[in-house]
Amino acid sequence: MSKRLDSQMRFLDEIEKLKVVYRQNRTVDRSRPENSAEHSWHVALMAIVLFEYADDKSLNLAKIVSMLLIHDLVEIYAGDTWAYDVEATVGQAAREQTAAERIFSMLPADQAKHFQSLWAEFEARSTPDAAFAASIDALQPLSNHLRSGSTEGDYKPIEQQRILDRKRHIGESSSTLWELAQQIIRDSSARGLYC
Amino acid sequence: MSKRLDSQMRFLDEIEKLKVVYRQNRTVDRSRPENSAEHSWHVALMAIVLFEYADDKSLNLAKIVSMLLIHDLVEIYAGDTWAYDVEATVGQAAREQTAAERIFSMLPADQAKHFQSLWAEFEARSTPDAAFAASIDALQPLSNHLRSGSTEGDYKPIEQQRILDRKRHIGESSSTLWELAQQIIRDSSARGLYC
Repeated sequence: MSKRLDSQMRFLDEIEKLKVVYRQNRTVDRSRPENSAEHSWHVALMAIVLFEYADDKSLNLAKIVSMLLIHDLVEIYAGDTWAYDVEATVGQAAREQTAAERIFSMLPADQAKHFQSLWAEFEARSTPDAAFAASIDALQPLSNHLRSGSTEGDYKPIEQQRILDRKRHIGESSSTLWELAQQIIRDSSARGLYC
Repeated sequence: MSKRLDSQMRFLDEIEKLKVVYRQNRTVDRSRPENSAEHSWHVALMAIVLFEYADDKSLNLAKIVSMLLIHDLVEIYAGDTWAYDVEATVGQAAREQTAAERIFSMLPADQAKHFQSLWAEFEARSTPDAAFAASIDALQPLSNHLRSGSTEGDYKPIEQQRILDRKRHIGESSSTLWELAQQIIRDSSARGLYC
């Protein structure tokens, strides 16, 4: 096996670990927490199905899908940080930056550079592609929570206003998806999932 | 919400169920069986990283990634069929065909047609794109099994020759990945995972 293929396979073996990084959301049968690998699958496919709702019609879907497939790989070393846990978010950006260098540097230099740059673009939401990818990443947990959440859940309901503030960026890349997100938030509040 | 978006969201909610369709393979920490959603994530990203090894240099990566993201959705209704369970494979094709119609018809007609056709192409391995996607889908469980398999596992080791016969199609789209697959099979046999 060439050195190049060997390093690619080491990377592909290492990312098996994302399947056992667990999130606050749950699977739809509530049997276990959702993990970041299956979440990444869901948002990648969601981006394909909902691509027509991007307000900017010049986006690059293939790039957005790649971005979503790799966006959570840093959690292998940095863990999943729940967005509403204020204490946990302290130092998150630096932890994830270190983790990104560690995971992507396993790849051959050209691919390492490509993925590192894709991840940084996603994190910074610095381009219309990244903004749309981030919208989809923000939408999926809302819709998952409405289906799988419970008022006898594992944590205290969050204030609806905090959710709205945090998800508002969806509107920057898709007015339709932002309307949808607000509807899901209202429906979830009506079910007691937000307070 | 428009009728179109409503049907797209119903589909995207329904596919949550793929996260609780479990396979024979295990997560790398051996804590639980791998599910078909995280497997789909892994093969989609694997296709991107290993795309350079396709012998045919005219393949469409975006299409291959889409194919891999949807290839197992039929399992939501048809279940995961272990390839080496001869009895279980009886009637599998018909069950999966019915399941494909059921899941994809939740989408608006144009998207339903697109995904149904993509899935059928993958299943039939009727094009070079589908053949490469199928190679990646065949490679991932080999490499997962070498890392997570155990000789004190949940099932009797399979004969190495059956594995080789079943995976030989990898060589039709990538001579490099077929060499790699054979190496993984030899390594796994040396560890007692195949007999």
